[in-house]
Amino acid sequence: MNNTIKLAVHGAAGRMGQRVVALASGADSVDDASGFTVVGAIDHAEHPKSGQDAGVVAGLSPIEVPISAQWPDDVQVVIDFSLPEALDSCVEHCVANNLPLVIATTGLSDGQKESLAEAARTIPIVWAPSMSLAVNLSMKMAERITSALRDVAGGVDIEILERHHRFKADAPSGTALKFGELIADAMDTEQPVAHVHGREGHTGQRTRNEIGYHAIRVGDNPGEHTIVFGMLGEKIELNVAASNRDCYASGALAAAKWLMQGEAGGPKPAGMYNMFDVLGMADGQ
Amino acid sequence: MNNTIKLAVHGAAGRMGQRVVALASGADSVDDASGFTVVGAIDHAEHPKSGQDAGVVAGLSPIEVPISAQWPDDVQVVIDFSLPEALDSCVEHCVANNLPLVIATTGLSDGQKESLAEAARTIPIVWAPSMSLAVNLSMKMAERITSALRDVAGGVDIEILERHHRFKADAPSGTALKFGELIADAMDTEQPVAHVHGREGHTGQRTRNEIGYHAIRVGDNPGEHTIVFGMLGEKIELNVAASNRDCYASGALAAAKWLMQGEAGGPKPAGMYNMFDVLGMADGQ
Amino acid sequence: MNNTIKLAVHGAAGRMGQRVVALASGADSVDDASGFTVVGAIDHAEHPKSGQDAGVVAGLSPIEVPISAQWPDDVQVVIDFSLPEALDSCVEHCVANNLPLVIATTGLSDGQKESLAEAARTIPIVWAPSMSLAVNLSMKMAERITSALRDVAGGVDIEILERHHRFKADAPSGTALKFGELIADAMDTEQPVAHVHGREGHTGQRTRNEIGYHAIRVGDNPGEHTIVFGMLGEKIELNVAASNRDCYASGALAAAKWLMQGEAGGPKPAGMYNMFDVLGMADGQ
Amino acid sequence: MNNTIKLAVHGAAGRMGQRVVALASGADSVDDASGFTVVGAIDHAEHPKSGQDAGVVAGLSPIEVPISAQWPDDVQVVIDFSLPEALDSCVEHCVANNLPLVIATTGLSDGQKESLAEAARTIPIVWAPSMSLAVNLSMKMAERITSALRDVAGGVDIEILERHHRFKADAPSGTALKFGELIADAMDTEQPVAHVHGREGHTGQRTRNEIGYHAIRVGDNPGEHTIVFGMLGEKIELNVAASNRDCYASGALAAAKWLMQGEAGGPKPAGMYNMFDVLGMADGQ
Repeated sequence: MNNTIKLAVHGAAGRMGQRVVALASGADSVDDASGFTVVGAIDHAEHPKSGQDAGVVAGLSPIEVPISAQWPDDVQVVIDFSLPEALDSCVEHCVANNLPLVIATTGLSDGQKESLAEAARTIPIVWAPSMSLAVNLSMKMAERITSALRDVAGGVDIEILERHHRFKADAPSGTALKFGELIADAMDTEQPVAHVHGREGHTGQRTRNEIGYHAIRVGDNPGEHTIVFGMLGEKIELNVAASNRDCYASGALAAAKWLMQGEAGGPKPAGMYNMFDVLGMADGQ
Repeated sequence: MNNTIKLAVHGAAGRMGQRVVALASGADSVDDASGFTVVGAIDHAEHPKSGQDAGVVAGLSPIEVPISAQWPDDVQVVIDFSLPEALDSCVEHCVANNLPLVIATTGLSDGQKESLAEAARTIPIVWAPSMSLAVNLSMKMAERITSALRDVAGGVDIEILERHHRFKADAPSGTALKFGELIADAMDTEQPVAHVHGREGHTGQRTRNEIGYHAIRVGDNPGEHTIVFGMLGEKIELNVAASNRDCYASGALAAAKWLMQGEAGGPKPAGMYNMFDVLGMADGQ
Repeated sequence: MNNTIKLAVHGAAGRMGQRVVALASGADSVDDASGFTVVGAIDHAEHPKSGQDAGVVAGLSPIEVPISAQWPDDVQVVIDFSLPEALDSCVEHCVANNLPLVIATTGLSDGQKESLAEAARTIPIVWAPSMSLAVNLSMKMAERITSALRDVAGGVDIEILERHHRFKADAPSGTALKFGELIADAMDTEQPVAHVHGREGHTGQRTRNEIGYHAIRVGDNPGEHTIVFGMLGEKIELNVAASNRDCYASGALAAAKWLMQGEAGGPKPAGMYNMFDVLGMADGQ
Repeated sequence: MNNTIKLAVHGAAGRMGQRVVALASGADSVDDASGFTVVGAIDHAEHPKSGQDAGVVAGLSPIEVPISAQWPDDVQVVIDFSLPEALDSCVEHCVANNLPLVIATTGLSDGQKESLAEAARTIPIVWAPSMSLAVNLSMKMAERITSALRDVAGGVDIEILERHHRFKADAPSGTALKFGELIADAMDTEQPVAHVHGREGHTGQRTRNEIGYHAIRVGDNPGEHTIVFGMLGEKIELNVAASNRDCYASGALAAAKWLMQGEAGGPKPAGMYNMFDVLGMADGQ
């Protein structure tokens, strides 16, 4: 425990905060070793679970850390999984105490994004549209596969399939579009890339410079993306699928760990980072 | 060999005819036992391979049956895998000799279809748009899964994905549309079923009475269909994929075997049958 | 609401009971129509949530039915999703009041199974090792596909893949073994079927009369089974996957609805039924 | 055509040589532009197709290059897809004429491998156990995904599934074992990695430092590998599948093109290269 990272979770009583506490405490891991010790479980003072043990709230054995509005002193890194209206006080606390910060809260206002950029001059911050390590990693892999196959004899046909639950009201998913954007850049075609959504009727042969999108809506699927690279005689498929929201908690913990791995043994230098940085796969790396 | 079925292949020198000869001779089977003996390998008299051993032409050891325009006498059942212009003489021969016939040739004219109906008053004929056993079987399975899940709590969302090679100029495939037709009937909804081809933009929530189609075009895929049945908490997927054209040869052989399994130990009674009959899964069965 | 089925849920305050209440109230369904009205939400008198609205406990709006130890009078059918020790009183109540009963509680003792058989002389009961509609349906489909492909030219190779979470300590899953048992029966081979678990080294060619099993252990997968039917030139794959426990709640509701669909407009006759009966796919049907 | 690479194919009358000629001539490509011109189609003098047009032999229109034992003068790069006993004369010709060489022939003797190493002091040679671009690329991707996920909270479980036809007599495939070797290195665990082949009985929980292998044998599958990375809440799957042998022809052409892309506009410097070099993904790059 001496060598583990001392973590505070902001929004610890919420659904996602509970899962961060649980995974940081080694739950569902075969060896119970997450590399973290939870030392702070912050939530607003009026929360009904205020004062209860954060481990118990998260469905574990007690961890001797109460849900509280008070920040402890011995924190090394902070994960925020709260709400946009609760975020500002967390950022202020981290700046004032020089604490590295992972922001997993979504739905930030433009003003808040500016404040984050400002805060990132003082402290290192990881912030990304999706905290999923697998999704971010798959995006980089899709980019590299596209580049590597660009000149293959006969060419490569790239299609993006995404599956989500029946209630999703837009198509394709923002993540699918982001995959498509990265792939289109990596295709580096002379003609602009055509983004084709569904096919019906007499379509003619597939063109070389198109990406096909297919938005499948079924049951309660929590989100799945498949990139198909079809060539003559072979194909590659890259599939990334969420089974539940633990992936976002895991991604936040990976980001927190990365923030503590600066060159001199301390945390990373101040700056705004994303999940590609956490993966060591930002552009130019 | 005494108990095997004596088969003549019409169009035996062609690409598909060769594969029927090969599979009927036990090629690629672990136990080399197909249940057939090839006794006739018919093709037109001017064919460059006329006179050669049909087994050798098909890439096997000799089977002592030459490619020939002459029909042998001891045939029990015929598979036609020729061309529309060659079909008529084959049908005539079968009618004249009271031989059960499987027709795997595609692209028949309306006049030919009428002639077949006429011939089917005299002999038993199997004819179907696709000879693939797996495709026909999957259609029946999709129908039954749809019926069985019709009233499941929370409902079931059905989507049809198909994949074909980049040269296919129409979408979705005829097979996908046939799947959709059978499924729509089995859904038995109060509202008409909506057939949705691709989704883009603000689509709103998925409705209960729609089927989604997704036509994927990649590389040299020889043809694959996936039916997804998505519910709350679980899903079923039924996938049927061709790896090459052997599936059509196998289907034709299955049809020939079925034709020889009439009730009294002889062939089926005269009539026009399809692959659902061969599978024992025609409507009402 | 007049035509909906009046349902009581025994164990309504538990995790699964809550989901039965939720789905029976139309949650997560596009049209909010489940065909049920929840009229009773039974749990033991000391339960901490006793007296609270069962809809609110299940995460919905109020449904004006409190969690209570008291059975209401107007119940038509009962779903039990409780614990073995709570089951007996539920069965007694149903027998005394002539109520059809679905038992989704697992881990019953042999004595309890005998009591159920006794109760089934008086009332209709559905009881099955797995309440998943998709798993039970897939088993029947696998059986039928096997039968239909038994004599295909070149033969069919059947393999069973299952995936579960990293904590599962036995392999393959009971469900995979049940699939294998049903498939082996349907293969109807002369030689006994060999059940092969994994392959390594110089295995020789695959034999015709074997079934291969592959137990994949990854992450937190809640349970997935894939049956592969490989032939020459084509294959069928049947995949059934749980995304969460809602599938068991849906299955229980399907069973309850089926119990109410007796021939004379009333419930089914007394007897012990399983999920194959609910699907209309018991042997001989 | 002035800017295309002048290619000679050694073994041009063989099955694979024909496909190299076909793909290099633009067959099956949407834009018919392969970047190559076939100027030589070499095979032994007694070959039955000697003297015939190499395009016609490959199933195309004539390309005005006969199958011949004579090497033309204007060759820039050579692809060998012949037989071990034919390889030596090809290597000699390339060394004598300073021609970059791609060797796609398999089954070389140790003596031949030494001769190749010797030849590679004079000319640049690409030689690899598998010429499939997709397989080699997938190996590198699997390595990188493993590295990137090494420290993810809760850990990652890696399993390797491979599918091959029923006649394959060893398990798992050499390619699966190579995937496992690269992944094991990238896992960089304290404990040695355990390679587990199939699971049966009371296995206990999955350990952190194991890789599971699953060798599926079905029908006529030409070869498919799937690497599953299972985490808490999400998973990545990387699937690479051959549909036919064109993938080896495409890979050989990619290697030939790469050999012509040296830094000074000419070919690469003398040396022995593999497909990871062709992909720009050798260790340390």
